[in-house]
Amino acid sequence: MVSDSPLYLGIDLGGTTITSGLLDSSGNILTWENYPTRGQRGPQGVIAEMARRVLAMLEQNDIAPSQVERVGIASPGPLDFSSGRIVETPNLKWEDVPLRDMLSERLDLPVVLEGDAIAATYGEWWTGAARPYEDVVGLTLGTGVGGGVIIGNRVLHGFRGLAGHIGHMSIKVDGRLCGCGNPGCLEAYASATAIRQRTREAIEAGAESVLAQQLEHLDSRAVYQAAQEGDELARRIFDKTGYYLAVGINNIFNILNPQAVVIMGSVANAWDLLQPAMEKYLKDLAFSGIAQETKVLRGTLGDLAGLVGAAGRARGGQRDAH
Amino acid sequence: MVSDSPLYLGIDLGGTTITSGLLDSSGNILTWENYPTRGQRGPQGVIAEMARRVLAMLEQNDIAPSQVERVGIASPGPLDFSSGRIVETPNLKWEDVPLRDMLSERLDLPVVLEGDAIAATYGEWWTGAARPYEDVVGLTLGTGVGGGVIIGNRVLHGFRGLAGHIGHMSIKVDGRLCGCGNPGCLEAYASATAIRQRTREAIEAGAESVLAQQLEHLDSRAVYQAAQEGDELARRIFDKTGYYLAVGINNIFNILNPQAVVIMGSVANAWDLLQPAMEKYLKDLAFSGIAQETKVLRGTLGDLAGLVGAAGRARGGQRDAH
Repeated sequence: MVSDSPLYLGIDLGGTTITSGLLDSSGNILTWENYPTRGQRGPQGVIAEMARRVLAMLEQNDIAPSQVERVGIASPGPLDFSSGRIVETPNLKWEDVPLRDMLSERLDLPVVLEGDAIAATYGEWWTGAARPYEDVVGLTLGTGVGGGVIIGNRVLHGFRGLAGHIGHMSIKVDGRLCGCGNPGCLEAYASATAIRQRTREAIEAGAESVLAQQLEHLDSRAVYQAAQEGDELARRIFDKTGYYLAVGINNIFNILNPQAVVIMGSVANAWDLLQPAMEKYLKDLAFSGIAQETKVLRGTLGDLAGLVGAAGRARGGQRDAH
Repeated sequence: MVSDSPLYLGIDLGGTTITSGLLDSSGNILTWENYPTRGQRGPQGVIAEMARRVLAMLEQNDIAPSQVERVGIASPGPLDFSSGRIVETPNLKWEDVPLRDMLSERLDLPVVLEGDAIAATYGEWWTGAARPYEDVVGLTLGTGVGGGVIIGNRVLHGFRGLAGHIGHMSIKVDGRLCGCGNPGCLEAYASATAIRQRTREAIEAGAESVLAQQLEHLDSRAVYQAAQEGDELARRIFDKTGYYLAVGINNIFNILNPQAVVIMGSVANAWDLLQPAMEKYLKDLAFSGIAQETKVLRGTLGDLAGLVGAAGRARGGQRDAH
């Protein structure tokens, strides 16, 4: 593989999977791979494998490390952007890890650290669903609910790098307890975990559902399949998830009034159920005209949004004209 | 009055009062006045008096209109910033008013239109409590709850000029009905109106309070005075108001992570009760360290924040070094 364009390595460090790849400066993915994180090995072991694998990836593609301009790594957080450190990651159970510098030393390349959901949002902004927009809010609906805010084509980190934690916006002060300890976070309603729990609780409270047979190994995917097959409870769960998302998105409309909101993560796979529900409730909730004018889009990069965004943050600068 | 510095006129068009004044480019108020809006006269009458009065103000101070560089006017909305129009104002019952151009024609001066709460936030950013900060969110707690967002020293209007409507962030999806028609808006809990209503409802539900005697002419000021005098219900109302504000402010921390949040408007006069309550609850709600690191401040410009901000928006540019 030969390229005259500057190249960027992107790495998406997830709780269960690491995805890494090589991109050109237009955001085209030249090659990528993924493999299990096995975070219990600790940061040293994980970062060593990460470095070894991206160097092997370069070699397999006949690319000298010197051809790579910068490396971007997306990580769960909270992060300290000024020092390039992981403050802590509940998923990986790591604390105070100088991820940026550890990786940079092993690769002998400059490394840029970004939050995982911010990177995913940035990926969708750079080459995905949000490519036409300057003011974009992203939501990643997975095990938790993450977020990213881009205003005027610039990523917002905020004072202490905490901006974009939209999953921890409370939409019900006396509501469901979130993993963070607070009541009513959007994450406690719209994550895959919350969909599973809300379904389980409804069944335990007596709701009829085909899912009653599989309470032991229930997950949000099973709830989605049941809804597809016409299960009433499962359909209500997704309709209500669309409602909670609409409340959260309407809050975002009222605070930031972005041009577009991009929905990513595994729960976005239920788009055919979520989208009509969100649209219906947003029409009711949002100030006149805003629901019609603001795009609520499904991400188009799927599981690779974080990788693309990590490489995009390594590249920096503006998007190509389009 | 003689000044070599460029001068700016600021006008704060409120539902009941208009405040106008003349400022220099450092934000010093050289002179100001206020008078009743009497909005039922309609836009033509109100704008004619507004123009007549600011021209008289200039004359009284021996200032030729040509010495005024620009005029800023703060208005309730929603507004259309691109065309300088009021879309509608529930307070004044005006609809589709080309305020910017009507005023500009009468004064023969360029006019900048800004939202009332955004202007107040900008005023506090320019010369008030938020002067040391670049990323500031303002909340005006009055009849309603308004807001303003400043990021990187720049005002955020958003896609359709709706950014900053923080009072319409829902903090309780099944909560109190707001004037906007949605449930659970921060405005439905933390405005002066909400404080009066929550107190009245508690008394009607049987809570004991000295305020039971004056249910007919209850207002948030009376609730504050009762709290000052040790009335248990009134104290609980303000403690709970501090809680709702903390939930809203923590949402802002999680979405925007600003350096400072400035609280303005008549309800901020209860600062001695609100501040400790907000601090207590924010310590509990906010991610580690953020509650301690982020300033939650009372505005220092009082009723003049909107005027100062309007003139500041007319001036534009950066703050003076400080």
